[in-house]
Amino acid sequence: MEVPTGASQFDARQKRLRSRLEAKKLSALVVSNPANLFYLTNFRGSSGILTFGLRTPVLWVDPRYTLQARETACGVEVREEKGRLLARVSQWLANRSKGRRGYRVGYEDSHLTCAALRDLRQTGLRLRPSSGMIEEMRSVKDPDEIECIRRAGHLTARAFDEVRSMIRPGIRECEVAAEIEYRMRRGGAEGPAFETIVASGPRAALPHARASAKPLEQHEFVILDLGAILAGYAADMTRTIYLGEPSRRVRSLYGAVRESQERAVGMLRPGVEAQQVDAAARRTLARARLGRYFTHSTGHGVGIEIHEAPRLSRGQQTLLQAGSVVTAEPGIYLEGFGGVRIEDTVLVSDPTPEILTPASKDDWVIA
Amino acid sequence: MEVPTGASQFDARQKRLRSRLEAKKLSALVVSNPANLFYLTNFRGSSGILTFGLRTPVLWVDPRYTLQARETACGVEVREEKGRLLARVSQWLANRSKGRRGYRVGYEDSHLTCAALRDLRQTGLRLRPSSGMIEEMRSVKDPDEIECIRRAGHLTARAFDEVRSMIRPGIRECEVAAEIEYRMRRGGAEGPAFETIVASGPRAALPHARASAKPLEQHEFVILDLGAILAGYAADMTRTIYLGEPSRRVRSLYGAVRESQERAVGMLRPGVEAQQVDAAARRTLARARLGRYFTHSTGHGVGIEIHEAPRLSRGQQTLLQAGSVVTAEPGIYLEGFGGVRIEDTVLVSDPTPEILTPASKDDWVIA
Repeated sequence: MEVPTGASQFDARQKRLRSRLEAKKLSALVVSNPANLFYLTNFRGSSGILTFGLRTPVLWVDPRYTLQARETACGVEVREEKGRLLARVSQWLANRSKGRRGYRVGYEDSHLTCAALRDLRQTGLRLRPSSGMIEEMRSVKDPDEIECIRRAGHLTARAFDEVRSMIRPGIRECEVAAEIEYRMRRGGAEGPAFETIVASGPRAALPHARASAKPLEQHEFVILDLGAILAGYAADMTRTIYLGEPSRRVRSLYGAVRESQERAVGMLRPGVEAQQVDAAARRTLARARLGRYFTHSTGHGVGIEIHEAPRLSRGQQTLLQAGSVVTAEPGIYLEGFGGVRIEDTVLVSDPTPEILTPASKDDWVIA
Repeated sequence: MEVPTGASQFDARQKRLRSRLEAKKLSALVVSNPANLFYLTNFRGSSGILTFGLRTPVLWVDPRYTLQARETACGVEVREEKGRLLARVSQWLANRSKGRRGYRVGYEDSHLTCAALRDLRQTGLRLRPSSGMIEEMRSVKDPDEIECIRRAGHLTARAFDEVRSMIRPGIRECEVAAEIEYRMRRGGAEGPAFETIVASGPRAALPHARASAKPLEQHEFVILDLGAILAGYAADMTRTIYLGEPSRRVRSLYGAVRESQERAVGMLRPGVEAQQVDAAARRTLARARLGRYFTHSTGHGVGIEIHEAPRLSRGQQTLLQAGSVVTAEPGIYLEGFGGVRIEDTVLVSDPTPEILTPASKDDWVIA
């Protein structure tokens, strides 16, 4: 397990969370979201519970993860537990709370299932839904995190450049996806951040199509949506390719999405409202009379998870901050015909945003 | 999207679920687990809600998935919804329940988060936690499903055989993992069912290690845990390799795990209690004085999800049924030294279980 620069960032994060707990008058927080566990402790198991309070936090794991937790987790005491973790945690917290009036325990209601909450509830603790505290911290990255995402992004762009030369009529979508994921792995990625999308022709009209056995054909758009994970951090990038000589209409579709995307990227500066970025992307497509084909939001935060805060969509009044990392990814989807999407992972910064997935948008035609 | 043999199996599953709903006196079930959505409707989006009742079920999706749902979902009406799906579903169910006494709605409490339940609750519906109904159906596979897992398993074994010849001192764990995933993809897999594990030397003592940049070395065990997804179904297989001439102790460790695994496989027949399979595997290792190094359970069901029912662990009294597909995967983990795990995906059947991941366990030494 690779820790970018020693363990000090975990101390700093735990310290910040501690003061947030105090501000919310919580005695302890039960952390169950694995992405948050990793952020706070460097532990990357798929399950585990962190009881985070004022003294040393305790990381509760089952025996599969004991060694891994002891080797990698920073700033916590590791305890192994064979039974139901949350039932045990509930008991332990109940003991600690004895005789302490106003002992209030937060839990991650956007992650914990209803069934898991029953386990946590069984000792009569005073529980408070408290999701979002750590997610909010994660929405502004520290320099180590930015460097991880930058490396993941450059690796993603490189894999795309390598595979671009293989794209031609006859090759299957799933073969292209296999090559992309292989190149990312060989480049040092831990794996793909999500199932790589390669969608051609009419299938490009499905925003979340899986790569299928369909061969690419002449006169088709091909949407490629890919991203590597590196040291626990994801990148996310989409490029659209056209096979054959593009007609005027094809050129104008591509051009409109590209303009929309570049507009959105240009706005990723501190102090801008998230919804304004979305509105700008949307306005550009509306002017080209393509607004109604843009059926999703403009972007989302990227980091430990592939979708995190902040969201760039309608109604989001959050002000962007320097150090946030988000995607800008307008797209249009024309049923029966195809689609175009262009996406970068971008660092919000002043005076100019930094594109972390620097692959060309000019070389979109393979004639 | 490939449907194995037409759509009739989805009708049959919906029919069975309908009679289970009646037996539980539920008027409707809100299905949110994507694996269950796929099982009932063939829709494979990452989000969506199915309201399943006595008339035509409704699949609620956001605009990203509308086309995909219309093209692939069987036996449902598709409705697109831009806002919060569960809030809308709650409203819709409340309207349907008007004037109907005893209108009770089940929801998947082991999948739904506490925050999502609040959305569903806001119209005062009478809600009942009802997880497990569909999971129980899924624990016995129909012939189409078995064929999908068999194909995924054979593909997984083939990928392992291909990569085995590359395993030698000096190659990095992550390079081996990259090759495995590439071969699976090239063989037709949609992707890996989980992050491929390649863990060598002391790292093999971590049951859930990630493949790292560590090069393999002479006189080390290497655990390889891999599985392909094919047509939505997973397989799961582990082999352990030893590099160099094995000592007597190394031979006896490998031999004990192998014996334990073959014992467990031999018991995968209809009518056997799940916990007995676990006990048999454990007993074999205990006789070799290795019992305390076996720190996890013996196996789990495999299908649409990589971990599903039935579980082969202590206290599980479920009787195995013909058509269940489970892993048998005892392992031992010796801190600082390494580990051995052997795993197959196995079809429970009479008179003999069928190993669906037929890779050799004899060729474990690369000298």
